[in-house]
Amino acid sequence: MKAWPTAEPRPFAAVLLFLRAIVRKARNGNEFLVVELGDKSGMFSATCFQDSAAFALFSEIAEGTIVRVEGTTERYQGKFSPRFTSVGLFSEGEVAAGNWLPKLIEAAPEDATKLWDELQEIINSIAHEGLRATTKQVFDTIGERFRVAPAATAMHHAYRHGLLEHTVHVARVARALLPLYPEVDPSLAVAGTLLHDIGKAIEYEGELAAKKSRIGILQGHVVLGYRIARQAAMKAKPALDAAMLERLEHIILSHQGELEWGAAALAATPEAVFVAMCDNFDAKMGMVQQALRNTPDTQEFSDFLPGLKVSLITTPPGAPPTAEPPPA
Amino acid sequence: MKAWPTAEPRPFAAVLLFLRAIVRKARNGNEFLVVELGDKSGMFSATCFQDSAAFALFSEIAEGTIVRVEGTTERYQGKFSPRFTSVGLFSEGEVAAGNWLPKLIEAAPEDATKLWDELQEIINSIAHEGLRATTKQVFDTIGERFRVAPAATAMHHAYRHGLLEHTVHVARVARALLPLYPEVDPSLAVAGTLLHDIGKAIEYEGELAAKKSRIGILQGHVVLGYRIARQAAMKAKPALDAAMLERLEHIILSHQGELEWGAAALAATPEAVFVAMCDNFDAKMGMVQQALRNTPDTQEFSDFLPGLKVSLITTPPGAPPTAEPPPA
Amino acid sequence: MKAWPTAEPRPFAAVLLFLRAIVRKARNGNEFLVVELGDKSGMFSATCFQDSAAFALFSEIAEGTIVRVEGTTERYQGKFSPRFTSVGLFSEGEVAAGNWLPKLIEAAPEDATKLWDELQEIINSIAHEGLRATTKQVFDTIGERFRVAPAATAMHHAYRHGLLEHTVHVARVARALLPLYPEVDPSLAVAGTLLHDIGKAIEYEGELAAKKSRIGILQGHVVLGYRIARQAAMKAKPALDAAMLERLEHIILSHQGELEWGAAALAATPEAVFVAMCDNFDAKMGMVQQALRNTPDTQEFSDFLPGLKVSLITTPPGAPPTAEPPPA
Amino acid sequence: MKAWPTAEPRPFAAVLLFLRAIVRKARNGNEFLVVELGDKSGMFSATCFQDSAAFALFSEIAEGTIVRVEGTTERYQGKFSPRFTSVGLFSEGEVAAGNWLPKLIEAAPEDATKLWDELQEIINSIAHEGLRATTKQVFDTIGERFRVAPAATAMHHAYRHGLLEHTVHVARVARALLPLYPEVDPSLAVAGTLLHDIGKAIEYEGELAAKKSRIGILQGHVVLGYRIARQAAMKAKPALDAAMLERLEHIILSHQGELEWGAAALAATPEAVFVAMCDNFDAKMGMVQQALRNTPDTQEFSDFLPGLKVSLITTPPGAPPTAEPPPA
Amino acid sequence: MKAWPTAEPRPFAAVLLFLRAIVRKARNGNEFLVVELGDKSGMFSATCFQDSAAFALFSEIAEGTIVRVEGTTERYQGKFSPRFTSVGLFSEGEVAAGNWLPKLIEAAPEDATKLWDELQEIINSIAHEGLRATTKQVFDTIGERFRVAPAATAMHHAYRHGLLEHTVHVARVARALLPLYPEVDPSLAVAGTLLHDIGKAIEYEGELAAKKSRIGILQGHVVLGYRIARQAAMKAKPALDAAMLERLEHIILSHQGELEWGAAALAATPEAVFVAMCDNFDAKMGMVQQALRNTPDTQEFSDFLPGLKVSLITTPPGAPPTAEPPPA
Amino acid sequence: MKAWPTAEPRPFAAVLLFLRAIVRKARNGNEFLVVELGDKSGMFSATCFQDSAAFALFSEIAEGTIVRVEGTTERYQGKFSPRFTSVGLFSEGEVAAGNWLPKLIEAAPEDATKLWDELQEIINSIAHEGLRATTKQVFDTIGERFRVAPAATAMHHAYRHGLLEHTVHVARVARALLPLYPEVDPSLAVAGTLLHDIGKAIEYEGELAAKKSRIGILQGHVVLGYRIARQAAMKAKPALDAAMLERLEHIILSHQGELEWGAAALAATPEAVFVAMCDNFDAKMGMVQQALRNTPDTQEFSDFLPGLKVSLITTPPGAPPTAEPPPA
Repeated sequence: MKAWPTAEPRPFAAVLLFLRAIVRKARNGNEFLVVELGDKSGMFSATCFQDSAAFALFSEIAEGTIVRVEGTTERYQGKFSPRFTSVGLFSEGEVAAGNWLPKLIEAAPEDATKLWDELQEIINSIAHEGLRATTKQVFDTIGERFRVAPAATAMHHAYRHGLLEHTVHVARVARALLPLYPEVDPSLAVAGTLLHDIGKAIEYEGELAAKKSRIGILQGHVVLGYRIARQAAMKAKPALDAAMLERLEHIILSHQGELEWGAAALAATPEAVFVAMCDNFDAKMGMVQQALRNTPDTQEFSDFLPGLKVSLITTPPGAPPTAEPPPA
Repeated sequence: MKAWPTAEPRPFAAVLLFLRAIVRKARNGNEFLVVELGDKSGMFSATCFQDSAAFALFSEIAEGTIVRVEGTTERYQGKFSPRFTSVGLFSEGEVAAGNWLPKLIEAAPEDATKLWDELQEIINSIAHEGLRATTKQVFDTIGERFRVAPAATAMHHAYRHGLLEHTVHVARVARALLPLYPEVDPSLAVAGTLLHDIGKAIEYEGELAAKKSRIGILQGHVVLGYRIARQAAMKAKPALDAAMLERLEHIILSHQGELEWGAAALAATPEAVFVAMCDNFDAKMGMVQQALRNTPDTQEFSDFLPGLKVSLITTPPGAPPTAEPPPA
Repeated sequence: MKAWPTAEPRPFAAVLLFLRAIVRKARNGNEFLVVELGDKSGMFSATCFQDSAAFALFSEIAEGTIVRVEGTTERYQGKFSPRFTSVGLFSEGEVAAGNWLPKLIEAAPEDATKLWDELQEIINSIAHEGLRATTKQVFDTIGERFRVAPAATAMHHAYRHGLLEHTVHVARVARALLPLYPEVDPSLAVAGTLLHDIGKAIEYEGELAAKKSRIGILQGHVVLGYRIARQAAMKAKPALDAAMLERLEHIILSHQGELEWGAAALAATPEAVFVAMCDNFDAKMGMVQQALRNTPDTQEFSDFLPGLKVSLITTPPGAPPTAEPPPA
Repeated sequence: MKAWPTAEPRPFAAVLLFLRAIVRKARNGNEFLVVELGDKSGMFSATCFQDSAAFALFSEIAEGTIVRVEGTTERYQGKFSPRFTSVGLFSEGEVAAGNWLPKLIEAAPEDATKLWDELQEIINSIAHEGLRATTKQVFDTIGERFRVAPAATAMHHAYRHGLLEHTVHVARVARALLPLYPEVDPSLAVAGTLLHDIGKAIEYEGELAAKKSRIGILQGHVVLGYRIARQAAMKAKPALDAAMLERLEHIILSHQGELEWGAAALAATPEAVFVAMCDNFDAKMGMVQQALRNTPDTQEFSDFLPGLKVSLITTPPGAPPTAEPPPA
Repeated sequence: MKAWPTAEPRPFAAVLLFLRAIVRKARNGNEFLVVELGDKSGMFSATCFQDSAAFALFSEIAEGTIVRVEGTTERYQGKFSPRFTSVGLFSEGEVAAGNWLPKLIEAAPEDATKLWDELQEIINSIAHEGLRATTKQVFDTIGERFRVAPAATAMHHAYRHGLLEHTVHVARVARALLPLYPEVDPSLAVAGTLLHDIGKAIEYEGELAAKKSRIGILQGHVVLGYRIARQAAMKAKPALDAAMLERLEHIILSHQGELEWGAAALAATPEAVFVAMCDNFDAKMGMVQQALRNTPDTQEFSDFLPGLKVSLITTPPGAPPTAEPPPA
Repeated sequence: MKAWPTAEPRPFAAVLLFLRAIVRKARNGNEFLVVELGDKSGMFSATCFQDSAAFALFSEIAEGTIVRVEGTTERYQGKFSPRFTSVGLFSEGEVAAGNWLPKLIEAAPEDATKLWDELQEIINSIAHEGLRATTKQVFDTIGERFRVAPAATAMHHAYRHGLLEHTVHVARVARALLPLYPEVDPSLAVAGTLLHDIGKAIEYEGELAAKKSRIGILQGHVVLGYRIARQAAMKAKPALDAAMLERLEHIILSHQGELEWGAAALAATPEAVFVAMCDNFDAKMGMVQQALRNTPDTQEFSDFLPGLKVSLITTPPGAPPTAEPPPA
């Protein structure tokens, strides 16, 4: 939306995601809806009065539905806030035919199917039978949601398939570094990397319009992940023995690093320290990668990145600096 | 010293490192020395009065000298504080003959010569000519001090050769992970890992009894390392071009991660983020490794580790827990 | 131990709790034990060499065993560190006959049996059938350990039965305040107060010598309590419905108040805010009560209380100040 | 204002509170006024030029005056910023006839007269004569302002009569809990709860449009409350003795809990700890109550509450969750 | 810009500073520019489409160029966002003739030439030959940039010549206080005050539109100042001896006071503590002075000042308070 | 006491300050005293049993009494803890004859009488009649205690007459800087510096053995100073007008700078910012001065200074560094 370079009121038509609707009451007692719509580039709110077709439609459809809207561009209290003249649904066929999805939602730059296959390969490479079975059990149960979930609603890997992408990347980091740290148990570390963020599959909800779910607010992904792993360990064939389960649970509970960042316990095993550091490594580098993708070549700096507390320099190191060097 | 299992006053003889001597004035105006001596396992203070042979000796010799002392075990103000009956120096031959050094000083578990060779190999692998020449120039100038310096006076790799060991380890981490992050320039990242802590070769002084030097207190290793790299870049053949030097300097200035941890700038290039994370990774895992080495097999937990804020569980994950599982 | 007003070495005999033994290796390679013994007033360490009877005994007995020791008072490195001439066990009969327990361990000032009965009464008063059955189920399973556990290893209610006492006190606070806050569901709030700290029954171990258990370090009492409540809710008759269980779990996960104090989630229901505040109220007032009990009448201030960051004024408000008022 | 569901410029007429006017100078040197007007639902700014009737009126009337305005809805720099065609005052009779006050200002949900009567009853229940007389003296002097003041300009009880409501609520909490903590002096604790926030009657000014007063900025409500209590204690019949006054003053000075939250001293008496906790309890629960009142039934979560750092779940615990439970 | 008291679209013409242009891509693939223009009173953004004259002009001219624009006032997304009908450059002669500079840029209230003369006088007063020569050398090299640079982009002395003004003020403070602290070396302290912020001459770039330069982001003014001083000390005649240079460098590296405020080392010499405090003194008082200048006489309080965390009371102490005193 | 260079038990005799006695109960029920005695160089504790002469004496005499003790040097729990064979009082004549005071208590290095005279001169220089009279009134009332009080119990100016010395120093700083900041009212600023810490005269008690008084703990020196100034302003002839008193009170309430450092309000007038900075300036420089006095010439660094977070380099800048410069 940021890129809509116009200011004067004029008719428009767009295909957009319906994000959510909030009921408000006007001073005269009549209800109206504040509707949020968006696409990959941003979002805006619009007001729909009780007697309009838009009011009727948005009162009924689910969040994340793709809609076609027509109207006039207007502003209210300084924000873009159009008046709708026509709203309508889109059939799945129309969505596919127009290849609308990639225009509406940012997705992981890597191919989701290949990432999923790599995830399977990594699971199969776990030497410890119980850990392998437990990990498989988790993804058999919750893989559907995991596959499309973002890794965050902001910060790093905050896009469709982002959780899958981040998880595979952390496992790659772990596998690359395991030879350097022989005191770390490989099966436990790899299973830990695959499951460390698994609770996010439940913490966020809405395939096309991700936000924190109620259970996500009440328990957080750390505890949810612990519960998912624990249940899978019991159902797995063979089930995971209690001693090893305790270690696996500890990795999930401690991977956030610090209590104030949401860890339920501080990492107290070599594998837990190792996984927390692999996670942190890819989270930070993921912010770098996303900034590089999103910054135009003509700019020397990215937008400010809150997770790194800087504007990243995005020109490659070999390139000549764009301004003359300082005199001293 | 912690391991000296005795309490009653009795004669003793020991070979020890002279750490330092502080002049104090007694109430009657006479000066006396508070002398610190130690070995690998700890240290203690002793008081030497003005008219003693010990006072004369410790007033003259350099910190880090190896001495032989005899005396009686006593305590003063609750600390072990012996009275010396005889003190003397050790010839270098005697030190070598008795193989005293490894008993007195903790050293990196890996062989220093092999680590040094690996460092050379890593330098030679740097593709960018100016970065390779600059890195070579640094170690040609300051390699002697670098080779024996600790990486810290506490926390991680705080032992003889520790700086060499930590530096090689961080470079190993970087080389293992570079294939996963193609946006990171390999030459710059590897040169950055080799030089990130180079200022510590000057920040600490005293080969056998490391402490912060005056210049270390006045400027800190971050600025000192920046200065060393800058001078080397100018003397190197070929000299490093200004654009690339700026990037290399930034890695050194930002590798501490946060301003309050001593960074002079926040990491703002892909390579600076990458090197700071590699450093952090090996620093944390180095604490794990040291705890595993120093904890007896009969104990389930290490001593409390301030850098990780926990007592690490040092029994391997496969081992049965030493206590029964909780009822729930 | 603080109260042992003597300094000169002399024979002694005492009945003490064996707290723990750590194996250390002397410089000559021989093992020795560092043994911790204590009673209600404090603790000390003693060194036992490999060939002594004390070494043999303390290598075998469990932590928390009551022992009779004889020896000579000595000091090592400034701490009281006796040499044992004789050590022996105590039969349960001897312990009972000498009424040793209250001399060795601080216990809740209120009678444990009456507190337990009050706990039962509070459980029975829960109107919601599922919450009542779940709470009952928890205490049927884990009541034994809960009954003797401390509420902390330091700070508030850090003594035998302290967890029971604190839990009943928090429930009393909740019941006194429920009439003032009608928006809070009474059944959920009362069940929440009874279960909020239930994980501490597992987080600490050792009936007479409490310390954090391995599972306590790996998961923490917040997650352990969540697990205990979840299992009980499923086994309870009737089982607790999912919607209410979610609310109960949330109270346990959020009762610590802030993430950095160990909460796994921030309180986001009226009942969770209410229980967290009731808990905080009694924790602080428990520190006040303990300081009032432990400060002699002749003193105007208690020792410094880290939990309140002050020395409490322990003279009653009506009493005349012990020093004249300031001139202004 | 949030609820004014319109965007297009059109005529309007409204009865509003005049909040304040700031004089600004245009680039051409002419002065103009930025006027703030509002009602219970929000506020907006409007610009009045030097030669307009609005400029003349708003230059003269006091903040908090009720006005009738007519004009056209417009926007300036993204904010609603109407042009006035007519402005006028309202007589007190017109305000009363139209029952305008409750439409313009949020007030405590409980009846102010009943709260005031309850306050009197609580004062009369104080057993200690000097404390009772001092408390009475305070409210005789400053009761008028106290009765209508808000308890805050944001956060908890931030509305007309909010200070009275919060004060009575804290006293209710104290009276409910005093039987549980016999070490707390009831007279001192109750007087302390009634007077803890008394300085807010002066810290805020403007009956209808509360903001911090100059003296509020210069001294803060903690010191102002201390001064009010001190003066009242001297004028009371009988006057309060110095020892008890010191305790009462300490409660006021320490009730904010932590220095960084504005406490002038840390609570160091049982009564000061007790009152600080009662205050904290009702402050947090007051935020819960306000969120429950202001959140429509159709919404599962309240707006984000900065004081609790969450969006509160406002559906009752018995209600079925609005979305299906997670699969795991 | 804040002072443009109008809302309706209408033609305008203005002389403004071109601050910067960012290239964006519209959804249809066409590029457009977001252009920032401003004067002393504020700034705004405007959108220029690919086929416009404005697009052509702003793609080519340097940041900080003075331009004349004509167009219609409009708004986009709530911000003032005009459409340009005509844009053009200004000759230097026209700028001078119209005396445009002081209308466009805020400058230090003191006369820059007099400040510069005073700076020279202070340099000449440095008794120590090497320090005097080094200081002279610095300003000979970098004086041009130093003279016009701001002392900050926000907070204190954030205007043209602000760095010069702040530097002279800090030296005045030092000279006034040196007689009170005889343990402080006057030459070193005065040289330190003159050079403490010298790195800001490079950290910021753009004479008329200051922002952080690339090297400013990569290294920060503390390290840049250290480098400038070090190079000057070597080129100075006589060159500064190593011992004194070390002290001077330390003052620059430590003057920010705390690591988290950007200091590379903590002040560890009497002169470093002294200079850091002089700097802090004038920084805070500079905020006071700027607030007093910018607040109209008719207002009792300044705008909120983030650096002081308050709204300053700007009426003089002798003046009667604008509202009646509180009753108590 | 640190300087007592001996460890073996032996007879001793000393003249010491009696600091305080705490009653403890031994396990057998008998009371004993823990007595604290000290001199300028430190302090120690000794145990006195119920039937001893020392017990009798120390139960009766006031804290701060000078005593003569004889006994044997012993240690208990690692601390110097002598057994007394004889204790006795000292007549005032004996104290004066032996000139004991300066040996027992550290005092301000400047002459107290001269400082006091300078204080009077500064008071007389205040131009504003009401402020001058108020300041005079304060010192007429409380000058006795003020004159001997320390400025702190740790950190800066923590010695007899330290409050007088610090106060005069801060006033000197203010008077030296007032010409540079004409927007600061001189009378108000000077009166503010003289009174900013006046509450410390009451916050600490005990002329020879300073510690926080009860009222100091309950209210803190900021509020106590406010009260003293307020009472004096009313009694002064002429009394201070309300508008100016409000400004003076604000300086006292805000001089600590930050709420977490104990300020009751944040500085919000030019004079309050000015005084807070003058105070901070001299506090930091006072730590520097004390470190320079207390560090022997043979040492390059002072002990670690918590208030500055460093060991200060105490050799003058001109002196050659004691170690060779680093190679780079």
